[in-house]
Amino acid sequence: MRYSLLNPGKRIRPLLTLLAADACGGDAERALPVACAVEMVHVFSLIHDDLPAMDDDDLRRGKPTNHKVYGEGEAILAGDALLTLAFQILADDIRPPQAAARCASVLARAIGACGMQGGQWDDIRGLSDTLSVAGRKTAALIEASCHLGAITAEASPEEITALQAYGWRVGLAFQLIDDSLDEAANDCDTLKTQARLLTDEAVQNISSFGTKASVLIELAEQLTKRDR
Amino acid sequence: MRYSLLNPGKRIRPLLTLLAADACGGDAERALPVACAVEMVHVFSLIHDDLPAMDDDDLRRGKPTNHKVYGEGEAILAGDALLTLAFQILADDIRPPQAAARCASVLARAIGACGMQGGQWDDIRGLSDTLSVAGRKTAALIEASCHLGAITAEASPEEITALQAYGWRVGLAFQLIDDSLDEAANDCDTLKTQARLLTDEAVQNISSFGTKASVLIELAEQLTKRDR
Repeated sequence: MRYSLLNPGKRIRPLLTLLAADACGGDAERALPVACAVEMVHVFSLIHDDLPAMDDDDLRRGKPTNHKVYGEGEAILAGDALLTLAFQILADDIRPPQAAARCASVLARAIGACGMQGGQWDDIRGLSDTLSVAGRKTAALIEASCHLGAITAEASPEEITALQAYGWRVGLAFQLIDDSLDEAANDCDTLKTQARLLTDEAVQNISSFGTKASVLIELAEQLTKRDR
Repeated sequence: MRYSLLNPGKRIRPLLTLLAADACGGDAERALPVACAVEMVHVFSLIHDDLPAMDDDDLRRGKPTNHKVYGEGEAILAGDALLTLAFQILADDIRPPQAAARCASVLARAIGACGMQGGQWDDIRGLSDTLSVAGRKTAALIEASCHLGAITAEASPEEITALQAYGWRVGLAFQLIDDSLDEAANDCDTLKTQARLLTDEAVQNISSFGTKASVLIELAEQLTKRDR
C-alpha cells in the first residue's frame, strides 16, 4: 500500500480537493482527510489497472508496478485495502457525520459501476468511444475530487454545481492530453484541440468565483499544456 | 456483480446482522441495507480470493467462479464494484448519518489491512498460524455483521460488546469447521473440538439476552454441526 501510494505522483486529485475547498472559503486542513481518500482511490485504481489481467503494465511513475514487486495476489489485496481505507478515513475523520456520509456517497458513485469501474469495464471490453470511457474512467473521480472539497467547505449548491462542471471538463481534458501523449496516438492534434476547448469551458464554469478560483484556473491551464 | 452476489449462498453474515438487530429490539427492515452491504463485501472477497493469483478456484457454490465466466480483469472489477457499492449503500440508506458513518467505520476496519485483507495477505504468504488467519479472514467480518446489526438497533454498549464477542467466536468456529471439511485436513477431530468449545463460549457471551437471542443460539449450534 505504501509503495504505490507514496510513489511520487502529480497528486492532482487531492490538490483539486484542497483548492475547491479553498475557493468556497473552506479550511484546507478540514479537507485533508478527503484529499487523502481521493488519492488512495486513485492509486487503488492504478494498481488494479496495471495488473496482467487488465492493462499489463510493468512500469508506473518510472518504477516497477506493484504486482511486479510484490506479486499479483498481493497487488490485488493492496488495491482492495487502499479502497477500503479511503472509506474508513471518510467515516472516521470527516465531521459532522452528515458530511461524512455525503462524501462517502459522492465518492462511491464516482468509483462504482456507473463511474470509474464501469469505464474500465467498457475499456477492457472495447465497448465505448474514447470520450465516454474517459468520462467515467478519469473525469468522474476528478469531478468528485472538486465536489468533495466543496462539501467539506459547506459550499452552496451553486458553488458545488460550478465546481462539478469544472472538474468534469478538466478531467476529460486531462485524459485527452494523456491520450495525445501516447506514442500510439495518431490524432494528437485533434485531441489537443478538444482538450483546449474543454479547458476554456472549465475556466468559464468557475468564473463566478472571481479571484478565489485563480489557482484552479492556473491548474487547468497547466494540465492542458503539459507534455508528460 | 449479479452473477456472484445472487448465486445461492448460506447468507450467514446478513442473517447475523438481522438477528443481532432483532435481539437488541431493533427493526430488521432498518438493518436490511447493512445486511446487504455485508453480503456484498463477503462476495467481493470470494471473487478476489478465487482468482488465479490467489486461491485459483474454478468452482464456487457449485458453479464456475466469476473469472471463469467473465475473465480475470472483469472479475477484479466486479469485486471492486461490489466493495464500493457496499459503502455507497451505507452512506445512502442508513439514517441517521451518525449511524451511517459508524457502520462504515466498523465495516472498513473489519475488511481492511488489519482485518480480512490482512488475513488473506498472511494466508497467501504463509505467515501466520491457522487461528490468526481464521480470525482476520473470517471472524472479523462475522463479528462486524453482528456489531452492525446492533448499531442499527441503537443497542447499548453492553449489548454491542456481547454480540461482538459472540460473532468473533462464531466466526472462528465457522472457519475451523470449514477447515475440518477440507479433504486435505488431517486434524479433523481437533478442529471440530475447538469449534465446539468456541460455540459454547459464543452462546455464553449472549446469555444476558435471554429468549431474545434464541435464534442466534440455534444458528451457532447449527453452524458447528454442519457437514458441508
